[in-house]
Amino acid sequence: MTEIVENVRNDIEKGQLIKGNEKVLVAFSGGPDSTALLHILRCLSEDMKFQLGACYINHKIRPRAVRKEISFCSDFCHHLNIPFFVAEADIPAFARESRLSLEQAGREFRYLILKRIADEDGYDKIALGHHRDDIVETILFRLFRGTGPQGLLGIKPSKDKIIRPLHNLSRAQIEKYLKKNKLPSMLDSTNRQSEYSRNYLRNKIIPLIEKKFGIGFRRALLTYAAIVSDEDRLLKGVAVQIISEISTTTPGGKIVVDLKPFGTYDRALRRRVIKLILETAAGKTGFGDFDDVERVLGVADGTLKAIHVGSGITVARDKGKMVIFGRKIALAKRELEVGKKTAVPEISSEVRSRLILPKKSRLKTQKKGQVVNLDFEKIILPLILRKIEPGDRFSPLGMTGTRKIGDFLTDRKAGKYIRDEIPVVADQKGIIWLVGYQIAERCKLDNKTRKVLEIEIRRTKHAGKNQV
Amino acid sequence: MTEIVENVRNDIEKGQLIKGNEKVLVAFSGGPDSTALLHILRCLSEDMKFQLGACYINHKIRPRAVRKEISFCSDFCHHLNIPFFVAEADIPAFARESRLSLEQAGREFRYLILKRIADEDGYDKIALGHHRDDIVETILFRLFRGTGPQGLLGIKPSKDKIIRPLHNLSRAQIEKYLKKNKLPSMLDSTNRQSEYSRNYLRNKIIPLIEKKFGIGFRRALLTYAAIVSDEDRLLKGVAVQIISEISTTTPGGKIVVDLKPFGTYDRALRRRVIKLILETAAGKTGFGDFDDVERVLGVADGTLKAIHVGSGITVARDKGKMVIFGRKIALAKRELEVGKKTAVPEISSEVRSRLILPKKSRLKTQKKGQVVNLDFEKIILPLILRKIEPGDRFSPLGMTGTRKIGDFLTDRKAGKYIRDEIPVVADQKGIIWLVGYQIAERCKLDNKTRKVLEIEIRRTKHAGKNQV
Repeated sequence: MTEIVENVRNDIEKGQLIKGNEKVLVAFSGGPDSTALLHILRCLSEDMKFQLGACYINHKIRPRAVRKEISFCSDFCHHLNIPFFVAEADIPAFARESRLSLEQAGREFRYLILKRIADEDGYDKIALGHHRDDIVETILFRLFRGTGPQGLLGIKPSKDKIIRPLHNLSRAQIEKYLKKNKLPSMLDSTNRQSEYSRNYLRNKIIPLIEKKFGIGFRRALLTYAAIVSDEDRLLKGVAVQIISEISTTTPGGKIVVDLKPFGTYDRALRRRVIKLILETAAGKTGFGDFDDVERVLGVADGTLKAIHVGSGITVARDKGKMVIFGRKIALAKRELEVGKKTAVPEISSEVRSRLILPKKSRLKTQKKGQVVNLDFEKIILPLILRKIEPGDRFSPLGMTGTRKIGDFLTDRKAGKYIRDEIPVVADQKGIIWLVGYQIAERCKLDNKTRKVLEIEIRRTKHAGKNQV
Repeated sequence: MTEIVENVRNDIEKGQLIKGNEKVLVAFSGGPDSTALLHILRCLSEDMKFQLGACYINHKIRPRAVRKEISFCSDFCHHLNIPFFVAEADIPAFARESRLSLEQAGREFRYLILKRIADEDGYDKIALGHHRDDIVETILFRLFRGTGPQGLLGIKPSKDKIIRPLHNLSRAQIEKYLKKNKLPSMLDSTNRQSEYSRNYLRNKIIPLIEKKFGIGFRRALLTYAAIVSDEDRLLKGVAVQIISEISTTTPGGKIVVDLKPFGTYDRALRRRVIKLILETAAGKTGFGDFDDVERVLGVADGTLKAIHVGSGITVARDKGKMVIFGRKIALAKRELEVGKKTAVPEISSEVRSRLILPKKSRLKTQKKGQVVNLDFEKIILPLILRKIEPGDRFSPLGMTGTRKIGDFLTDRKAGKYIRDEIPVVADQKGIIWLVGYQIAERCKLDNKTRKVLEIEIRRTKHAGKNQV
């Protein structure tokens, strides 16, 4: 066994990348790195008792190159007696749909498709050909392009099912291995855009750095990234915990942060919390750059009132809370049929109404206004559930005359930014229930009530503390 | 007021670098950066109501250049009506004494001397000419040379008394400012070694990065460093807290870590704790590289037994504890005069002995064996306090025959690595007290005892939880 194979074996054992009897799927492009990876793993598979499979992903970016590559990969695997298959990935279409660059789309989709294949075909691990110089280049690339501490992640020897058995080898070692074993390989036709930046780093910038700072600079950077990425994981865990304690999600999906406890945390942690909340609100890892986060902190400390941070996300301060939301809720107008359930998916809720006898109507708990009892004979059907309209008025229980809904909510300190999530129920004469707050005086139960209409609104998704 | 002066004013106000009526000492080398700094601050000082002084530090590295520079600086300050003085710093001598390179010595001593002058002459702030490109170069320099997250610190707009009012300006802006205002400046004669690396970064590497990644890469790096440095401060605070909870310092200055609670922390935090402990043990900020820290973690988790980490620091595992110490304690041999105090500075302690009446001798608490009562008439003076010698034996209270001190301590689970700190007290016939553990049977009090010798050992320094 050559020294390099031995090194990889040690790294696999040390990092517990592959365990006995596991099935390993190698992402095989036919390029030098994945060719070396597949060959090295083949040298080890019998002795270390794992099974191999190889998968070529057809990115459909350069059809002609692809045919050659597939033919090469297929022959190579046949020769080594490794099951080989091709996964089709329409990257250009995926890029258009997901509004990503071809490069980003290729990367994201590659992981998605590999994971799907691994799940379907019972592979325990997915092996990628990334080596040490790739990782150094990635670190520099991200530092120069702009990143937070979390940007140095994703380059670990293993993460979930993904493993990088060559993470300790240099490009030169891989080239030497291919040469020594007379292994041919293809020029990788994918990721050209990324390759362009990488080539520049590899051929122009890194040699200059190495000339001045010595070959040790690679190790210095890798060590640095290892420390920072562990600390990143730690701080992310702390931020998740804080978010679960100080924020809630409204039925309409707005994130509401209680600013009093939020303000007690260190600025570095507040940044982390905001970053994670922005990512959650936008549904995109990495969303929210430094300036966005700083501006959100400005909203939290009261120097800004409300801001937009891109991707349609608004952040607004509202009565001691900070509300982060992607879009206003547009509550549709719906008829509520008595005795039936009506889904209100805009606020992850459903409304039930039913007729009950007066003696059953003494509600033990009002569940914060989520269940109400009305005198059915005072109501003129049909019942409508709709959003609050400008100028809406009603006559709240216990009051004489009418009040503007807006004023009524303001008096009750209802945040301005969550009013789009508050429905009203109206009959032919007007509003009979401001949901979550109060019923109309004219529909209240009295000693002549014969039929009670009970209306209840319930969340269909978990309504508790935030889960990021 | 020019735009650049206005920018600096904004940065001063935003960062609260200088407040009204403060005295600001400018470190003035006559080089372009500090010349621009002094001139810009002079433009602002009347309006912003602060006072200026300028100090040239004579590093005594290049005497001829120094004379020219001093003459230039003196004229410049005279012209601007700013008090000017020269501080003498024998950097070569300081470098020899402190075993630092000329470059390191220059940097360290510069801060020391500026702080001393500021304290003596009542300056509230010390202004340095570092600008944005300096900071970018420092970040790259440290990343390529090797650093942990803490390495990106020390480049903030302000820290303690130190302020960097030009931190937001580029080198080009400073050069433009000097040119526009027809201000001459000197080539800085100091920090040549550092300048060499910096020139390389500045003239070779950075332009290449900028060509590919655009001018924004500087801002990307600065932002990154700002986030990381805030998180560093946070994590350092957490580590200090953990250290105070899980470690103690022995009388001889060894740091003893309780491994059970230590093991419950996240690896990233354990690294931080170890790093800080190593720095404390070595008395040097920055001591202990990644490999040292990893090896210490190996000792903590039991894969290594004992290691040396340079600077004479030993780390050893010992009965559920980890002991970190700079050197073995060499306890001197001393006579203990009855009725007097004897200092034992090697273990930050003092020993007192006195004669008391038997009826006073019923010790309420033995204070963990720090005070003992012996029958004075069974003792043959003089009393000697000394370290444990190989082969030492004594006859412990309540036992028949003699025991080896080593075995006795082993039975009591006394850590091997702290035995050099345990003194014994002996009379002419042998050991009468194994300090902290047990007295000899032959000296015990009985109903014939007429005179009691009380001996007490006390720590003179705080003996409690660790303070880093």
